[in-house]
Parts: sequence; C-alpha cells; structure tokens
Amino acid sequence: MSKEITARATDYSKWYNDLVIKGELADYSAVKGCMVIKPYGFALWENMRDALDKMFKDTGHVNAYFPLFIPKSFLSKEAAHVEGFAKECAVVTHYRLKNDPNGGGVFVDPDAKLEEDLIIRPTSETIIWNTYRDWIKSYRDLPLLINQWANVVRWEMRTRLFLRTTEFLWQEGHTAHATAQEAIEETEKMLEVYATFAEEFMAVPVVRGVKTANERFAGAVDTYCIEALMQDGKALQAGTSHFLGQNFAKAFDVKFSNKENQLEHVWATSWGVSTRLVGALVMAHSDDQGLILPPKIAPLQVVIVPIYKGDEQKPVIDEKAKEIMANLKNLGIRVKYDDNDNNRPGWKFAEYEMKGVPVRLALGARDLEKNVVEVARRDTKEKMIVGLDGIAQYVDGLLLEIQRNMFNKAKTFRDEHITPADSWDEFEKLLDEKGGFIAAHWDGTPETEETIKEKTKATIRCIPLNNVQEDGKCVLTGKPSAQRVLFARAY
Amino acid sequence: MSKEITARATDYSKWYNDLVIKGELADYSAVKGCMVIKPYGFALWENMRDALDKMFKDTGHVNAYFPLFIPKSFLSKEAAHVEGFAKECAVVTHYRLKNDPNGGGVFVDPDAKLEEDLIIRPTSETIIWNTYRDWIKSYRDLPLLINQWANVVRWEMRTRLFLRTTEFLWQEGHTAHATAQEAIEETEKMLEVYATFAEEFMAVPVVRGVKTANERFAGAVDTYCIEALMQDGKALQAGTSHFLGQNFAKAFDVKFSNKENQLEHVWATSWGVSTRLVGALVMAHSDDQGLILPPKIAPLQVVIVPIYKGDEQKPVIDEKAKEIMANLKNLGIRVKYDDNDNNRPGWKFAEYEMKGVPVRLALGARDLEKNVVEVARRDTKEKMIVGLDGIAQYVDGLLLEIQRNMFNKAKTFRDEHITPADSWDEFEKLLDEKGGFIAAHWDGTPETEETIKEKTKATIRCIPLNNVQEDGKCVLTGKPSAQRVLFARAY
Repeated sequence: MSKEITARATDYSKWYNDLVIKGELADYSAVKGCMVIKPYGFALWENMRDALDKMFKDTGHVNAYFPLFIPKSFLSKEAAHVEGFAKECAVVTHYRLKNDPNGGGVFVDPDAKLEEDLIIRPTSETIIWNTYRDWIKSYRDLPLLINQWANVVRWEMRTRLFLRTTEFLWQEGHTAHATAQEAIEETEKMLEVYATFAEEFMAVPVVRGVKTANERFAGAVDTYCIEALMQDGKALQAGTSHFLGQNFAKAFDVKFSNKENQLEHVWATSWGVSTRLVGALVMAHSDDQGLILPPKIAPLQVVIVPIYKGDEQKPVIDEKAKEIMANLKNLGIRVKYDDNDNNRPGWKFAEYEMKGVPVRLALGARDLEKNVVEVARRDTKEKMIVGLDGIAQYVDGLLLEIQRNMFNKAKTFRDEHITPADSWDEFEKLLDEKGGFIAAHWDGTPETEETIKEKTKATIRCIPLNNVQEDGKCVLTGKPSAQRVLFARAY
Repeated sequence: MSKEITARATDYSKWYNDLVIKGELADYSAVKGCMVIKPYGFALWENMRDALDKMFKDTGHVNAYFPLFIPKSFLSKEAAHVEGFAKECAVVTHYRLKNDPNGGGVFVDPDAKLEEDLIIRPTSETIIWNTYRDWIKSYRDLPLLINQWANVVRWEMRTRLFLRTTEFLWQEGHTAHATAQEAIEETEKMLEVYATFAEEFMAVPVVRGVKTANERFAGAVDTYCIEALMQDGKALQAGTSHFLGQNFAKAFDVKFSNKENQLEHVWATSWGVSTRLVGALVMAHSDDQGLILPPKIAPLQVVIVPIYKGDEQKPVIDEKAKEIMANLKNLGIRVKYDDNDNNRPGWKFAEYEMKGVPVRLALGARDLEKNVVEVARRDTKEKMIVGLDGIAQYVDGLLLEIQRNMFNKAKTFRDEHITPADSWDEFEKLLDEKGGFIAAHWDGTPETEETIKEKTKATIRCIPLNNVQEDGKCVLTGKPSAQRVLFARAY
C-alpha cells in the first residue's frame, strides 16, 4: 500500500513528513525551501485563519495591507532589529528580464538595476512604522489596531514542511498606543487570544510565558509566547506577542501630541502566528495511522461511506445518506458522502483515517434494515452501533466530545511532561530519557543560558506568567535563583 | 476644509486620486509603485473577496497556495508566455544581507548569489503547471479546480492607486481538464461568475466578450473578458478568463492516461480578478462629494449620527440608537453609531458622504418626540423623514433599493454610451466628443487594429458574446466585416 506511514517509534521526523505529504496537506515545490499548500491543507489553514480573524476583529482590530518590499535602508534604522533580521533575506536587485532572441532563454537586464535594493519582508515593523509616521499625529489617532495577513520570506538553510519554510503565510498585528501601560495590556491581550485559539480550536494546551533576553524578538522590550509540547517531547513556539516599547517609534520618528499638546513617541506592539501552527497541530495529535484533526477546524468533520453489494441496495442507501447529510448540514456540520465506486470501503476507511476526519459513518444495507449505523471516531478509533433516529444530534455531540477528548489527552501528556530538575545530572537525564519541559532554577544570566544550550541543545522556552516564586539554586551554576523556568529542546 | 475633492469636470484623474486618498481606501508607500491598502479599503476588498470566494466554492473550486518565487527558467518554457511576461519583473538575485560593523548600514552579501535567479510571480501558470505534472496521472485526477488568493508583482513604470500598481492582490484560478470542451465550458462559466459578481455585488454592468489576438493573454488560445465603463467614458477590463488549450501542459509535460489508457496532454484554463476592481468601483459610481459604495459590499452600510443640545438629550438618543442598531444587526446589516463628541454633526455628514456609506440616520431629540428619524441615502442624496416603528425593515429595503438604483444608473449610462459608428470621421468624433464604447465594423486583421490604436489610442475591448452578425465594412479600411466589435479608450 503506497500510503503506509513510518511509525513514530521508528522515525518521528519521517512520520511527520509522511503525514504532511500523504495526508495531502502540502507538497515540496520546485523552489528550494518553499512548499505548496495543497487544497486539503489550505482548507485547514482557512479554518484556522477565519477563527483567528474573528477573534482579532472581536477585540477591535482591523485588517490592512502593506507592501511586500522593504527598502534595504529601512532595516538599518532600528539597532536591535537589524541584528536580528538583516541576515537570510531574499533581495530584489533588478526589475527587468529580457528574452534572448537567439533562444538562449530569459536573462536579467543588467541595465535594470534598482537604485536601492529591496528586501522581501521577513516581518513588517519597518515599513509599517514608516507609514504610521504619516497616520499618527494626535492622541485622537490612537490606539491604532491593525493586522495584516501576508506572506513573508526568511531564507532558511534547513527547512521542514510547515515548521520552517523559506516563504510562509502568517498574520502580523502592529498596534500603536499613547502609553506604555496600554501597549503592555495589548501585548498580553493578544497572547491570551493566541492561547485561547490554540487550546479551544487546535486542542493544543500551551504554556503562556515571557522569553528571556536571549530569545527576545529583535527590537522588542519584551517577547511573550505560547509554548506547546509535541509527542516526541520537544517544545514548539506556537505564537509570540511583543511589547516594542518606543523602539520603532524612535527609529521612524513617530510622535503624537498628547492631551496636554506635548509631543511624545508612540508605544508599539506586534504579534504573529503562522502556517507553522499547522505543523504543531499535526505533531500534537496524530498517530501512526494518519492525521487526527480537531473537529472545530477539520476541513471535513464527518464522512459517510456506503457499504453495499449489488445495484439494488445502492439507491436505498443513497436516499438515507442524503437525509443524514441534510440533517448534519442543518447543524452546520461539514460532511461528505463518498459514494465513489472506484474505491472499496476498506480503502476509503484507510484514506479518511489518514486524513484525520473526526467521524466516519459506515452505512450498510443490513444496518438500514435495523435502522442503525456504524459510527467510528478517529481520535480513539472506537466503533459504535448507533440508532439512526436523531443521528445528527448524536454526531453533533460526538464532535464536541472528540474536541474535548483531544484537548484533555494532549493536556495530560503535557502536564506529565513538565518535570522539575534540581541537579545537573537530573536535568541531563530527564532531557535525554523523558523529554518535555524541565522546570529548573536558573541564575538569570544569558551566559548560563548559552552554556546550557551548548551542552544540551535545550533552551529556556519561557518564564511562565504568574510563575511561582521560590528560592533555589541554578541547576548549572548553583547561584541563587528566585524561580524555576521551563527548559526544553525545541522545534 | 482639508477634505475637499477635485471636481470630475475639473480633473477626472485628480478626482479619482482624491477619492482614494481622502476616502481612506489606500495610501502611497515608501516603495515606488506599491500602495498601502488602508483598513477601510481593505474591508471593502475583504467583502469583495469573500463574495467571490463563495462563488468559486459553490462552483466546485478549492483554494491552495503556491510559492511566491518562480525559477527564471520556468518563464522560458511556454513560447508565447515568455514574450508576455519576461519583461518588467522583480528579480531576486541574492539571499543574504550583512550588517556593516562600522555602521555603514546593511549591504548585500556578494557571496550569497543564487544559482538561479528567482522571479516574483507576475502570474503563476508556470509554477502551478510544473506542480500539476506530479498531481495529474489519470483521468480520475481530473478536473482539478484550484484557486489561489495571492500577491503578484509586475514592475509597472506608470502606476495609479488600485488601477495599476507594482504589487497587487488578486485571485488566480488554474484548472485542468480531460477535454477541450470541458475546459472551454469552465472558461465561460468563470467569466459568467465574474460578470454576475460585477453586476450583482459591485452594481457595475459589464460587457461579456472575447479578446482579439492582439489583446490575448500571453499563452492563451482564447481570452474572455468583462469590460466595464467608467464615468469619463473610458473602458476598464474588470476580469479575464483564459482558455489555455494544451499550451502549458505541453510546456510542462503534463499528461494523463484517459479511460482508454492512452496518454494525452491536459487542457487548461486560468482566470483572475484583482484589487483593480476597487478602482473600477470607485470610478463607476462616485461623485464630487466622495465615494458611493454599493450596499452589498460597503464596509459600513448604515451610520447613525446623534443630533443633540446639552447633556440631558444625549442619553435618550443613545438608548434609541442602540435599539435601532440592535434591530439592524439582527437583519445582518453593518451599522455604526458615531457619537464621538469631538466632531459636530455637519462634519460627520461630510465624512460619511466622503466614505460612501449608503444610508445615514440623523437622530435628533425633536425627531424622537415625534417618533421619526431623518434618513439620507448616499446615492441620490435624498432625505426622508421616516417613522421609527419598523425603521430596521425600512432601512433593509432601502439598501436593496440603493443597490438596484446604482446598477440601473450605471447601466443606463453604459447603454447610452455604446454608439455605432459607420465612418472613420464618425468614429474619431465619437471617441473625442462622447467617449464610451464604439460599435464599429473591423476587417479582422491585427494590422488594422494596431493602426486604429496608433491613430486614436482606442483598442478593441472585446467581441461581445452572442454578437449580432451583420454584413458591413471596416470603419478604417472599408474591407468586408461580418460583425461590429467594441472599441474604446481604456484604463
């Protein structure tokens, strides 16, 4: 069978790639490091995007669109930002091609060199704050709460489908405020939006926290993050929300006159999540048979497969299937009736298991006589024989139950994988043998953080919000520490 | 008043720019030829996009996402395509920047030159058909009905907000079929989707037609188009749908095995509309006071402005306004209550006229005593005093009436501006004095078409679908002709 998947235990990384490719979420492309998001994967992303977009709008944000190109000089304007982003960028240097009349193909016209090179946006703070200078004059223009859905490019050397690609899709919120306090509240509010989305829609529990200085966004005063745990015990940063202070306002000279008619620099935030979330979703829930998608964002929530012998049975099943479909659709459920007779039921069962469709109804002629149907749930692989009367309501409830069960299962796993370590031996042993988050004391210095990273590849994922304060000693240096932080190896 | 608009009669082109800038649809950017789509303009585009997206999905299409970058060599693979698109393109030649440690800013790392230059997609046929080669093996894989919402870049020398920008947003459908007939039907179906969208949502009547060979998409066998008429008598191509034959399948070697198990090249279509439609919308309907937006896609359909003196009146008006808002929202109407007390009612009236909000309710204390409200419609500028009982239903009906009226008005104007010309003198005179579409006989040769373009700047906008066949003589050469075609000067 061509669709066989590598088992997690055999090769976790290969298992992940198999799921993405064979589950038809994405495909490799002719351009190094770039992927094609296939229709099934894109439908999943659309559901995620639409849910997030609604949450952004419900919290007062509006969408806009800024240019793909950033003048090279803009990147140099904010000192920390340039260190972080003036690296692996795609650079546009020319604006014209010519076609060789002798059939030698297309070549770049050397006369069409740009006066100033343009960078494909790796993130848009610079071009947006350069624009905000014209839009913000008075406190009456604040707050400015803008989001953008866009593609961005970061020239990655080692790429992985969804998790790290040269081009990716994301949203980036860029807000402007009159006070530091208001900007910090916005930063925290958007972190909570991300956490709610991850937990309620993706069924992925996350730790809300703050990054250390080493892991901060280039140009931020503080970076907040949500951290998720994958089944192999590695952490994955699933979203970040930055308090930018007045750094970009100063770099781009964005001032407003306050109520006392005095000029002040504006306070900023930015926050983003990307198609990387699709990778997180796949790795958090799926099994060796394929994807397991949470009902709230699954492109297809229910599939109905007819089981019949001979042509007489088919019309009766068709009729019942259409009735069930109509009832499910009335409840807002995304359902498909797969009566394609090129494939046998067993093939279809495997296919929809691979695709992670939460609920499968197998509708047979004998079942119909008994007025029942076989219901299979993807998350637990249980099969139930259920009466056809009220089946739509039953399925509706089951989808909720699956969503809840997926979250609870992931949360139990995550909670079991936050382990305290009080000595360096314990720390290393836990990392190698158990994985997950390790809660350990740290002396607060970037040097110690860096040493631990060099020794173990583990980084400080975050200092959890509302962290318990307790006296302790740094797991590496033994120096005094006031709280534990979460270490992990990460994607 | 800073928001004054140049009159159409004074300078049509400046009028258009004033509307886009002062109506807050878009802004110029720091990157030559690129614009910023502002929140109000983007909300309008979102409504257009969502309506189109639903129509695409209702006709069986799914969305996907392909890379922003196209390897330079791909452009050369289809002979006609390369002529059309290997021109003004943005070219990525390098993938790394370095930060000058001596403070000289950012520079492009000369060691990071790409082995093959990458083109920012001007359209995606090549990268998509290169991908379809792996996706299409059998007739069972067909039809493939895929759409993509994306940004594209064409390095334009002369740009205008929305109408022609270096980067723009669009959708591009790319479908694959087993037969020519099926591909032609798809091409025509999508043209009809565009026409329906333009007429029913944008309230812009369009002529459905086919382009002449000169105006065909580079790589197409046939280009279908919808053509709209602007208030200055110039035409605007509002959407195109291309039958690509087997050109791209041959260029990228995309074959399928048919039911007889023989290999055949696949048949293709592509079709697209862009943010240019926003420009068409603005120019088709607006007046010297500002935008006039059709209710179906207006970001805001109704605004309520309170009129009061003193603080006692305000709470009573607030309460009634909130009741009206709730009733309007229940009917799915997008409504805002503007009780910002920084601005006076007269300022607000002008502001919402500028923004093209279809219906304004002015709610005063005296009106409330009489249980009435002043309703102003943007399209005709009529004001009516209407009873408050059942006001939501009244407004709901009025929005429909405005949508209908805007279409009828534009259609009357368009129909009055399709004028037959039977001599060259008449042709030139009509073009200069009346504008609009000129229905004239043409001898069918590209040479005559080119000569007419050189003499008058008028092009053949299209040969209308289901065109009346009648014997005649070419308006320029006098040679025999079997039908009239539509000429116009165009955007």
